[in-house]
Amino acid sequence: MVSKGQHVRGRIIDAANRLFYERGFNRTSFSDIADAADIPRGNFYYYFKSKDEILGAVIDARLDDISTMLEGWNETIDSPRDRLKRYLKIAINEAPEVVLHGCPMGSLNQELIKGQLAPREHARKMFDLFGSWLEQQFRALGKSKDVASDLARHLQGRMQGIALLGAAYSDTEFITREVRQLTRWLEEL
Amino acid sequence: MVSKGQHVRGRIIDAANRLFYERGFNRTSFSDIADAADIPRGNFYYYFKSKDEILGAVIDARLDDISTMLEGWNETIDSPRDRLKRYLKIAINEAPEVVLHGCPMGSLNQELIKGQLAPREHARKMFDLFGSWLEQQFRALGKSKDVASDLARHLQGRMQGIALLGAAYSDTEFITREVRQLTRWLEEL
Repeated sequence: MVSKGQHVRGRIIDAANRLFYERGFNRTSFSDIADAADIPRGNFYYYFKSKDEILGAVIDARLDDISTMLEGWNETIDSPRDRLKRYLKIAINEAPEVVLHGCPMGSLNQELIKGQLAPREHARKMFDLFGSWLEQQFRALGKSKDVASDLARHLQGRMQGIALLGAAYSDTEFITREVRQLTRWLEEL
Repeated sequence: MVSKGQHVRGRIIDAANRLFYERGFNRTSFSDIADAADIPRGNFYYYFKSKDEILGAVIDARLDDISTMLEGWNETIDSPRDRLKRYLKIAINEAPEVVLHGCPMGSLNQELIKGQLAPREHARKMFDLFGSWLEQQFRALGKSKDVASDLARHLQGRMQGIALLGAAYSDTEFITREVRQLTRWLEEL
């Protein structure tokens, strides 16, 4: 059973997650989060002492979500190539949000790159998770470890570029076109 | 001749430009800029009333720099393919800074995507400048207007993805490898 405290904590993390994505981490204040989670300021400090603590919890929650998603794909999709195509589909499925706010993972990393080392490295773990999963799929396609690792980073870069230009120009057609190209690239690999 | 006022104004813009790049726009305060430009707070307001005004001036300065650079390339590099290769070289030349702070243009756009429409559209003009120049080069290579426009956005996306993953992993080798791939792609185009 989830206790009331865990429930409140979860509500704070959900609210912060949403705000960090829509407004950005740096433009979201401690009190924005308290307001969005609808929690009195006084209670709030019981759960989190600083915005950085909330950031840590948000990244952990996102890491959990990513892991669950990737494990789900491993269980339900047999072929590594189809798994990689499922990964590409994120860009299509999330396009309506991406054109408004960019990629949640990419934009948070971009913000934190300009900040302190610890949160920067924590946020990068999201890229790491996808990266090692992608590498496994390329390995399963018969690529050597080095090649698979390069292909994984290459594909992550492609997806990030698609998200950023797609968002800058609110261009879902661009996203669709690029994903189609990447799909062909995967098929020929 | 440059008046003292213009000189001070230029110093403020340079300091803000640097800070927006290294720390990000949202993490840079009005007084950070005054301090970095070494200008008394009182004098400062004579030149700029708000951080948004400084942002506008910084983007205008960057747009001027980009125009000058592209015109320079048009004058000194004859072949459109070599011009496109010169564009790719930005990623190599700027790699030491990119791995620390990301791409100046991409990271500012990424920040502003989550903000108000006017600065967002102003920042996008940097992408527009490069985009229409790239399109001209692809046209000169014999591509139709539509294809040239798609190739331009594709290439900008690729470069942004390279900058973001390169920065997240402080990985200059990745940048070099990706630029090599893009060079081959250009040669086969």
